[in-house]
Amino acid sequence: MIRQGCQTMTCSKYSSDTRRVQVDIETARRIAKGVLGAKGCPPDITVEAADHLIDSDLSGVESHGVWRVLQYAGYYDSGYLTADVRPRLEQNARGAWLVNGCGGIGIPAMTLASRNVVTRAKDTGMAAIALQHVGHTGRLGAFAEYAAGQGCLTIIIGGGGRQNWRLVAPYGGRKALMSTNPYCIGVPGGNRGPVIVDFATSAAAAGWVYGAKVAGAKLPEGVLIDRDGRPSTDPQAYFDGGAILTAGGAKGYALAVAAEMIAEAMLGPATTECNWLMLALDCGLYQKPTRLQELAEEVLSELRDCPPAPGFDQVDVPGEREADARTRNRNRPLELPSATWGEILRLAHDLGVETDAPNTG
Amino acid sequence: MIRQGCQTMTCSKYSSDTRRVQVDIETARRIAKGVLGAKGCPPDITVEAADHLIDSDLSGVESHGVWRVLQYAGYYDSGYLTADVRPRLEQNARGAWLVNGCGGIGIPAMTLASRNVVTRAKDTGMAAIALQHVGHTGRLGAFAEYAAGQGCLTIIIGGGGRQNWRLVAPYGGRKALMSTNPYCIGVPGGNRGPVIVDFATSAAAAGWVYGAKVAGAKLPEGVLIDRDGRPSTDPQAYFDGGAILTAGGAKGYALAVAAEMIAEAMLGPATTECNWLMLALDCGLYQKPTRLQELAEEVLSELRDCPPAPGFDQVDVPGEREADARTRNRNRPLELPSATWGEILRLAHDLGVETDAPNTG
Repeated sequence: MIRQGCQTMTCSKYSSDTRRVQVDIETARRIAKGVLGAKGCPPDITVEAADHLIDSDLSGVESHGVWRVLQYAGYYDSGYLTADVRPRLEQNARGAWLVNGCGGIGIPAMTLASRNVVTRAKDTGMAAIALQHVGHTGRLGAFAEYAAGQGCLTIIIGGGGRQNWRLVAPYGGRKALMSTNPYCIGVPGGNRGPVIVDFATSAAAAGWVYGAKVAGAKLPEGVLIDRDGRPSTDPQAYFDGGAILTAGGAKGYALAVAAEMIAEAMLGPATTECNWLMLALDCGLYQKPTRLQELAEEVLSELRDCPPAPGFDQVDVPGEREADARTRNRNRPLELPSATWGEILRLAHDLGVETDAPNTG
Repeated sequence: MIRQGCQTMTCSKYSSDTRRVQVDIETARRIAKGVLGAKGCPPDITVEAADHLIDSDLSGVESHGVWRVLQYAGYYDSGYLTADVRPRLEQNARGAWLVNGCGGIGIPAMTLASRNVVTRAKDTGMAAIALQHVGHTGRLGAFAEYAAGQGCLTIIIGGGGRQNWRLVAPYGGRKALMSTNPYCIGVPGGNRGPVIVDFATSAAAAGWVYGAKVAGAKLPEGVLIDRDGRPSTDPQAYFDGGAILTAGGAKGYALAVAAEMIAEAMLGPATTECNWLMLALDCGLYQKPTRLQELAEEVLSELRDCPPAPGFDQVDVPGEREADARTRNRNRPLELPSATWGEILRLAHDLGVETDAPNTG
């Protein structure tokens, strides 16, 4: 399926000439687990993280896919992240809930937070939880899918950490000063499940830039500027002192600054990577789930039926493309950039992880 | 001050050749009050609405300024809005709070909601309130400024009402199906006050399109498509079956769909105009106000000091431009499009409202 002007995370941002190799899903999962385990992650964290990354690839969000084991391994080596820790649920002196990630990978911290905030929202109507001292939190959409699936409107906002992560230039500026400060909203939807909004306030998530470099791919125009503020499509321009632009100009920038106030000023200073705020509201406070689904489906079916604009073949509902991709990709090999998979195999080999796979054709 | 590529609401989106006239602030306020009062609004609602609209003009947000009295007057005439009502605070059977706008103008409903949600958030840590049966709610930033000024992170999301307000085409589609579904976030900031994010998920708020038509002005590229899906800068193209585009392509669209799920599916169906959800979190749960301000100022001063990109003269902090505009504009006449002010004077005259003003030079 050809889509012109695709801007969602579920079609690859890598240039179409990127060489790719087919990799059996279970082989990729086993090797990802092997690498994380060899670096010292507890077995349960290893399983959860590897499953999460593979699920991102299956969802078509390869910026948050299995290539991240390379990044995480580097973080463990440098001491930026700690492998052998688990997140802890805590309350501060004013009774506010937070998850202390203890400097480990953020995926299990985000799981713990989403379970806790949903349970409390279902009990009292609404709840908030903060996340601090966490590493990379994976694909936020996965946690919003869970919470919305439980009937909660869920809002996740991340920011801070600009001392380590000066990636994005403010609107009107030419120097990278902020992280990609993502927003994720999940809300119960129609007959095909929750509506999920999951985006960086930058023109592309950092994963696309890092991943494109590993994959040897170019990026679309409008994503990067080089160190002199000139437009570039070369991910290397970013690493040579350039910056990622904000999404939608002033609007993405404004959201990014609000995230900075929340995560750095209210919850910070951020230590490891970003700080996060997660809010959940039980939609059942205002509407019966069956009625909500009926009204949602009325809206969403109108959107799906909208005549496409020139260059598009259909109108998508946010979140459905990822869900469709998971269904479609479940029983076929991953198609990973060859360079990326080669690096993962080399790392696994160096760590003594078994890399020979049964031939899956 | 010339700003290339300005995309915020605080520089006019009307073409620079739009003819303008200087109008004394108190004259504009008095005539706006006169028109609303003559249409049957209670005196307190009249004062509040007129003050709000004038404050929007002073803030540089002329899409939500005094020209709206023309629109409101038309709504009262057609029966779309009811003049002689006040909003009511209610709780539903599950104890959830809501403001019933009773089919009146939405500005006093939004004031009531913001006061209630802040009071409860300061008491219990966080709170939510819904708004239903409301007309146009004015400039959302004004309410977020109040709530953030009280120390609360505040999120306001509106949507629904697509039966009356099919303005915006979904990303990838060519038919107007949704309203402009705005988001507004207010959060305590640094030494210069709260950070305020206030935007339509469309490429421009509907007020710019309606206001441009009244003013006889063109709009920038990337805002409108005509009935055939072709780009247009003529506001009339919109009224002839065209549509407003979403902001930032897929990202603004995704936010718009989430707003639709919240306002139409969870809080709806919407009756008068949009339904709204307002959330407030007491930032003091997580940080002392003085420390929050200190950390915020560190971030914001870095942003203000960022070297500008070609075509820009500075990097702005969201919300500060409106605050600066209010300070700057407080003691000088409004500069309203001549055509707009002429229509307001004609309407006032027809209603027997005194239009002769003392000469203010």
